[in-house]
Amino acid sequence: MSQTSYVLRLSCPDRVGVVATVTSHLASRGANILEAHHFLDTVSNRSVMRIVFETGGQPIDESAFSREFGAAMQPLGIEWSLRDQADKVRVVIAVSKHGHCLNSLLHRWSTDTLPINIVAVVSNHEEQRRLTEWHDLPFHHLPITPGRKEEQERRMLDLFAASRGELLVLARYMQVLTSAACRELKDQAINIHHSFLPGFKGAKPYHQAYQRGVKLIGATAHYVNEDLDEGPIIEQAVERVDHTLSPDQLTTIGNEIESVVLNRAVQWHAESRVFEFGNRTVVLR
Amino acid sequence: MSQTSYVLRLSCPDRVGVVATVTSHLASRGANILEAHHFLDTVSNRSVMRIVFETGGQPIDESAFSREFGAAMQPLGIEWSLRDQADKVRVVIAVSKHGHCLNSLLHRWSTDTLPINIVAVVSNHEEQRRLTEWHDLPFHHLPITPGRKEEQERRMLDLFAASRGELLVLARYMQVLTSAACRELKDQAINIHHSFLPGFKGAKPYHQAYQRGVKLIGATAHYVNEDLDEGPIIEQAVERVDHTLSPDQLTTIGNEIESVVLNRAVQWHAESRVFEFGNRTVVLR
Amino acid sequence: MSQTSYVLRLSCPDRVGVVATVTSHLASRGANILEAHHFLDTVSNRSVMRIVFETGGQPIDESAFSREFGAAMQPLGIEWSLRDQADKVRVVIAVSKHGHCLNSLLHRWSTDTLPINIVAVVSNHEEQRRLTEWHDLPFHHLPITPGRKEEQERRMLDLFAASRGELLVLARYMQVLTSAACRELKDQAINIHHSFLPGFKGAKPYHQAYQRGVKLIGATAHYVNEDLDEGPIIEQAVERVDHTLSPDQLTTIGNEIESVVLNRAVQWHAESRVFEFGNRTVVLR
Amino acid sequence: MSQTSYVLRLSCPDRVGVVATVTSHLASRGANILEAHHFLDTVSNRSVMRIVFETGGQPIDESAFSREFGAAMQPLGIEWSLRDQADKVRVVIAVSKHGHCLNSLLHRWSTDTLPINIVAVVSNHEEQRRLTEWHDLPFHHLPITPGRKEEQERRMLDLFAASRGELLVLARYMQVLTSAACRELKDQAINIHHSFLPGFKGAKPYHQAYQRGVKLIGATAHYVNEDLDEGPIIEQAVERVDHTLSPDQLTTIGNEIESVVLNRAVQWHAESRVFEFGNRTVVLR
Repeated sequence: MSQTSYVLRLSCPDRVGVVATVTSHLASRGANILEAHHFLDTVSNRSVMRIVFETGGQPIDESAFSREFGAAMQPLGIEWSLRDQADKVRVVIAVSKHGHCLNSLLHRWSTDTLPINIVAVVSNHEEQRRLTEWHDLPFHHLPITPGRKEEQERRMLDLFAASRGELLVLARYMQVLTSAACRELKDQAINIHHSFLPGFKGAKPYHQAYQRGVKLIGATAHYVNEDLDEGPIIEQAVERVDHTLSPDQLTTIGNEIESVVLNRAVQWHAESRVFEFGNRTVVLR
Repeated sequence: MSQTSYVLRLSCPDRVGVVATVTSHLASRGANILEAHHFLDTVSNRSVMRIVFETGGQPIDESAFSREFGAAMQPLGIEWSLRDQADKVRVVIAVSKHGHCLNSLLHRWSTDTLPINIVAVVSNHEEQRRLTEWHDLPFHHLPITPGRKEEQERRMLDLFAASRGELLVLARYMQVLTSAACRELKDQAINIHHSFLPGFKGAKPYHQAYQRGVKLIGATAHYVNEDLDEGPIIEQAVERVDHTLSPDQLTTIGNEIESVVLNRAVQWHAESRVFEFGNRTVVLR
Repeated sequence: MSQTSYVLRLSCPDRVGVVATVTSHLASRGANILEAHHFLDTVSNRSVMRIVFETGGQPIDESAFSREFGAAMQPLGIEWSLRDQADKVRVVIAVSKHGHCLNSLLHRWSTDTLPINIVAVVSNHEEQRRLTEWHDLPFHHLPITPGRKEEQERRMLDLFAASRGELLVLARYMQVLTSAACRELKDQAINIHHSFLPGFKGAKPYHQAYQRGVKLIGATAHYVNEDLDEGPIIEQAVERVDHTLSPDQLTTIGNEIESVVLNRAVQWHAESRVFEFGNRTVVLR
Repeated sequence: MSQTSYVLRLSCPDRVGVVATVTSHLASRGANILEAHHFLDTVSNRSVMRIVFETGGQPIDESAFSREFGAAMQPLGIEWSLRDQADKVRVVIAVSKHGHCLNSLLHRWSTDTLPINIVAVVSNHEEQRRLTEWHDLPFHHLPITPGRKEEQERRMLDLFAASRGELLVLARYMQVLTSAACRELKDQAINIHHSFLPGFKGAKPYHQAYQRGVKLIGATAHYVNEDLDEGPIIEQAVERVDHTLSPDQLTTIGNEIESVVLNRAVQWHAESRVFEFGNRTVVLR
């Protein structure tokens, strides 16, 4: 039933024979390919691949496999990583006062429908402690005191490291990270922006949307980078709205979209589907 | 079957008794209300209403009705307009080289599924002459020569007036109108912007969208005003896209959205459903 | 801020002067109309209206208002009901083992973004007790024992009555109600069906959808009536899916749609927006 | 610019080494893979692949390539086909009286945004002759006379063959084909059904949708098979509707969805993206 399977991610400059080299090596080790997806990005002229394989029921010797596979890939300049699908990504969630995204992530996780391993929740406020602890998860309150915001951020990053976190999910954390933190978290932090980017950057996007009279509102999940609200987009969705809705009602509808969009982005990241190309992503679904 | 019916649009400062005054007057003239929609905009504190009524089969004496109705509305400061639903809005369409929006408008019009009366097509290019004339409509070629753009614009506005146009539809006209023209066309011109505003203003939005790696692309129909791409939004829609699509393919998908969005905006305007409040619209559907 | 306001629902055979009679009466009592929506259903030739009004800050004497208003409406055969908007609909939620809809309803309720008053949760299983009691709500376990299903249903209906429930929300209750219960709950029970009706009636719709290879899956919220899965539809939504998704993954996506759709239907019902016409609904948004 | 490229479709029972065998063969011939997509259908245990490759600018010798490639694939039981991407699929369109799908297909084709080669239009009516001939395409009027429907169908199939048609697009043809014709056209005919299947099979689906009060309407493009409206689904889409829309207005909205959905299905088929598995399709996008 729960057969051992592996997901392999690869990225390399485009050249003849890349797919053949990879798949031939796997075939020679008796690996049966369950899913294979290749995409050549013609802007950067780089290929990315995601391959899911199993080996007839018995687990592979990961270190031997890696040694041999690495040797085969090296001549072609292929960067790669391997992950046992049973080894779920370790996630730390950062929240502020609002709990809709946290609640949705925890519900999906607790019903075993989101393939991640949540290890801690951190917050600059106390509001979400009760929900977190009800799920038997550690809740870390890291309040922000005037003039000591960077110190608090440092504590959060240390906690992320100490928890052996692999992905930091900013589930409406509402704090702008320093450039240093953004660099440190590169490829490891996903933010949900409560707007359909690139429209309505910055604060209070639902109020902006109301003032502008838009007919659709949306949310955007993206990797964190040094440009606020400009990181590579992983997923977006919108919902139809109209003039009868107040900014509060737009916010409620927006909250539902945010939860759905963030769940999807976290899932795709956790399933090794997302590749970054500069300011864009490729999601191999 | 094709019973005579009228659509009444009203707008006024909010006060007690507005709806009662309007509907009582109509009832006293034997008008049977088929649709009534009222909305109080709490930002501007103005009410808008749209009422569709018929009067038992026989047409009303419009000038007598207007005189009496106007007298009844005047004390409450109600602005209003009346239109026989059989009297379709006279539309002039402006296009450039691309014909997808024009083709869709003409198809809907020619199959009697868009309640407008197209009276002319104008263009700064010749590409759409053949399609226009095939539909037995006059095509006016108004080329733009260097240094004489304003003169060409003047000719277009004169043509709009001479055609007794009531609505100018910029169906990918691709020319920025002067401020003077925008003022002159206030409430009478609808533009289709090939982007989900307020993102990607300006030129080549599908290329911008590609560079930014967005996961949805869209289109926006809005009234023309002096701020380019900032007029009141009437309708918007989006479609899901992904990394596999080139800028050309995004453009093709975007073109289909543009046609659908522009058709809807034109229809709602033609059905007297759209009210402007500063930079927003209320669409009473 | 939290001004006293009222929502008035009306329904009557179409005739001249209905809107005028209603709004004139309200104006004569100093009621200021905040929202008014009228729809004439040309199939049944009945009018429905929803009017939200306030009376300058002070509450009305509801019994005096009702006596006078009733007298004014009676000659026109107008059925009506009045509700103080602060008086939230009392809701009982019925669930089975799965908690995604319950979790979403409770989250919205607890963050004050769903205008209902949840008074109890009932279930034929124990799974959702912990979540319910964490929200300080009574959880009633009404197990179904072989041959005594009708008795259990009777107990649920008695509990609904004893709780002074006004709306029973079947949030994935998974039990078919008897015809007698459906009649008793007419207009008072909303079910979420895990499919885009009228396709995929009956059990395991996501497996049916998988077998059929549909490209969109959806959910439908409807009033309960005697024909299983055939009650008047209140709201529906869909999400795009593809061949890569297993029945389990379709189920997870479907669960998210179910929560959103059920929340909307409950909200619109609670805001007195939904009118039933035979097997259809009119939702005055 | 318009580099020669090829699309290869493959299908086979799942076994170790399939992807490696294919890609190694291509690499040994100097083929550069531009896109590669593999999917293992775990229900049927068959793999499908779609590979786009080019060979450094110069065209391949197709017959030599095919001989060698076929020899390499044969031991693994791989079924395959190769197509030069410049060699567009030859399409015959069948219509009845309504022209919205035809108009949209012709517009896309004539603006070079749909990669097909339309060779003829056939119809049992005369309505679409003018539009067809305006596009300089042959229009074949094949009227249906009482008792001679099968004979007319035979003439249509003969015409399809004589035109060397590869795909018959039933763009609202409105005639039920005989089982014999469905068998003959297997995998070669796409129909647009004006409903979100599997709901509302049969005639007048928009009237059915109106009677049922659905909140979304849709359209479905599918391959033709012997079970009317039950062929493998290629694409579906929906649009939000409400109670204010008459059956005629639903039809207009539905027509727009039909055009978009049919265009997409035809495009994906023409790009060799669609694989049939029994009653389902896999669309490798």
